[in-house]
Amino acid sequence: MERYGQLQKLRRAAALVYVADLDAPVAAPDDAHHLLDVLRLRPDEVVVACDGRGTWRACRVRAESGSGRRRGTPRGRAVDGHPTGAELEPVGPLTVAAQPSHPLTVAFAMTKGDRPEWTVQKLTEIGVDHIVPLLTRRTVVRLGPQERERRADKLRRVAREAGAQSRRTHLPEVAEPVAFERALERLPSASLVAEPGGGFMDPGTRAVLVGPEGGWDPAELACGLGRVDLGPSVLRADTAALVAAALLGAARSGAVLLPAGRAR
Amino acid sequence: MERYGQLQKLRRAAALVYVADLDAPVAAPDDAHHLLDVLRLRPDEVVVACDGRGTWRACRVRAESGSGRRRGTPRGRAVDGHPTGAELEPVGPLTVAAQPSHPLTVAFAMTKGDRPEWTVQKLTEIGVDHIVPLLTRRTVVRLGPQERERRADKLRRVAREAGAQSRRTHLPEVAEPVAFERALERLPSASLVAEPGGGFMDPGTRAVLVGPEGGWDPAELACGLGRVDLGPSVLRADTAALVAAALLGAARSGAVLLPAGRAR
Repeated sequence: MERYGQLQKLRRAAALVYVADLDAPVAAPDDAHHLLDVLRLRPDEVVVACDGRGTWRACRVRAESGSGRRRGTPRGRAVDGHPTGAELEPVGPLTVAAQPSHPLTVAFAMTKGDRPEWTVQKLTEIGVDHIVPLLTRRTVVRLGPQERERRADKLRRVAREAGAQSRRTHLPEVAEPVAFERALERLPSASLVAEPGGGFMDPGTRAVLVGPEGGWDPAELACGLGRVDLGPSVLRADTAALVAAALLGAARSGAVLLPAGRAR
Repeated sequence: MERYGQLQKLRRAAALVYVADLDAPVAAPDDAHHLLDVLRLRPDEVVVACDGRGTWRACRVRAESGSGRRRGTPRGRAVDGHPTGAELEPVGPLTVAAQPSHPLTVAFAMTKGDRPEWTVQKLTEIGVDHIVPLLTRRTVVRLGPQERERRADKLRRVAREAGAQSRRTHLPEVAEPVAFERALERLPSASLVAEPGGGFMDPGTRAVLVGPEGGWDPAELACGLGRVDLGPSVLRADTAALVAAALLGAARSGAVLLPAGRAR
């Protein structure tokens, strides 16, 4: 019940912003722009400042913050041309949110276009803790080291925005896009590969790997992990990642029970 | 196992097309365009013709179909300027897919833009049988009778495309956008309203109603239906509809178990 009381406070706050220092919280320029120019918060409205690692406190936007920025000045820039943040005034105690009982991982094959961004947004909303973009043998996308870093930065920004919107006190970790074989070394042992004809998840499942539209390469399927079937119809790769996340999340919260010993 | 054998055949087919008559199957012009110009099927490739009500058969595209259309002629038009379909040649027996044990319903508040299309696409992929776009008190979208019909037509086209892509032998019914109170009259009694702080789904749950971003109006929440909480974080409306569908679908297939007597 205490957990639910916390959730209600988080939900009722006008916004959540991730800050570096909860003792002297400052909304970064982009966040300040969002609070002041998009949401147009009044000084008496409560926002939550959160460190992204489970600790948060209620704050107010200081009245003097962003003065001169409300009248159509460019995004994240003060009238003198420099980006500016917004100081937040703590009005509530430091609160530590309960750590989830166990972290959940979804790895998904990178696709072209902005679908990885969409997938990261949804996985973050649903509560996945580790998000791993995979480069599989049949992944159409080829990324050099710099490009991987750039894509990871972009996906982390998406996760941060989605985390704030969905009031997540623990931000997910988004890995750099990584080759399937390298990812295997780091994934928890209770990982399953999504594949038609596989079994069900079981109560110990902690991670699901979702392949590209073209399917896994047979060498990847032979990696030794169990297989999970995500449903009777053919799912697009992004839908499959979401369904996996929804089932893992619901099992963790107790909303559903996973049958024992069904994964193949 | 017979069911799984059927699924494999459906999955392996180069495409699934919905046809009016399984004894003399003809792909409609748009579908013919997709088969011949987009997928560029060769005459020996097998497609599935399906009536959308559970019966299907393997077919080949007749060699003479679409002659003259492959070289950049406009979508769905033959060289003489008239739209043309493609005759399909049955090569397998009529097969009746198992009816799902019970139909699943997801109703969701209409939003602006193309998010309803996206939601219908995903709900169709996941296997929802009745999709009901809702006009709630806080729904921003206002639709007159003609506009409702037009939107329903669009959403049904989306469901048809998603159904073909995901190899659904039973096409979902997509209702015309309908006022919340009217929808209540037609929904199964085992329907739950998605709302933070609600309970879990139980094994009897057959339908979930998802409200708009602004939430339900108190009068709507007082409609007498139980409430279901879809997870500890704040979900966007479209994500909530998907999570509800994933849980209902997984419970129907036995992939997860719903706890008894937890809905409030």
